[in-house]
Amino acid sequence: MQARSGPFWDGVEGRAPVPPAAATLGFEFVDADVEAGTIEVAFTATEAFINPAGNVLGAFLAAMLYDTVGPALLATLGPDQFQSTLQLSVSFLRPVRPGRLTGKGRIVHRDGDTVFLEAALLDGDATVVTTATATAQVIPSASAPTAA
Amino acid sequence: MQARSGPFWDGVEGRAPVPPAAATLGFEFVDADVEAGTIEVAFTATEAFINPAGNVLGAFLAAMLYDTVGPALLATLGPDQFQSTLQLSVSFLRPVRPGRLTGKGRIVHRDGDTVFLEAALLDGDATVVTTATATAQVIPSASAPTAA
Repeated sequence: MQARSGPFWDGVEGRAPVPPAAATLGFEFVDADVEAGTIEVAFTATEAFINPAGNVLGAFLAAMLYDTVGPALLATLGPDQFQSTLQLSVSFLRPVRPGRLTGKGRIVHRDGDTVFLEAALLDGDATVVTTATATAQVIPSASAPTAA
Repeated sequence: MQARSGPFWDGVEGRAPVPPAAATLGFEFVDADVEAGTIEVAFTATEAFINPAGNVLGAFLAAMLYDTVGPALLATLGPDQFQSTLQLSVSFLRPVRPGRLTGKGRIVHRDGDTVFLEAALLDGDATVVTTATATAQVIPSASAPTAA
């Protein structure tokens, strides 16, 4: 078992606060297999995320998938590394009601600092409602981009 | 000028409440050119959307672009029509701090009920921070998908 250190694991294991954006999405860490590059997380879609039809707006499903692929990669990085998501492509398969959603993410391929990822969001019946692919870049924490 | 009726314009013009998901993103309607298929909207990225570095998590930038392309199409539809976003692809160009962001959306091409859209999110200096393309389908309101 690889040492679980760095900002991501500090958040997951309670040594650092959950980032605000993750808290807003009701993010919970469930499990990760660092060797396999897989992660399972969960989200809580509240009534604050619905459209007039009462479904979770796809906007928030996309947000949850962003916050699934990011952690899938972060879980595998060293304490001095961070990641930047360059591109996220989301397919909206089915509508879903508010509630707990499971995010399953996976590193498909890593080539140097370039990483290809995929993720799926599942409802309470384990039906896939939304899928995504993403491209990310591993960067030294010291050069993580910060807006002016 | 085309008659502005239907659920989208009811929300924009205050005859119906702003949908919860839009309110959560701080959505504001700014302007639309229905003939040209263009729209300008705005969002307020709050501290609830930030990552540990203090930037708006890309998850919420993707959400805002979802809620830009949707309205770009909805603004052009009749009162008995709705739309379903099938696919959204987002490129994260630059980090951005919380604040007011402008969303500019455009119908690139409509072929029957299939519609291709694009959008960009701009910061307070009008610098593009995130872009997206999307595919959507126009559907009768009566057959809008609802989760079980």
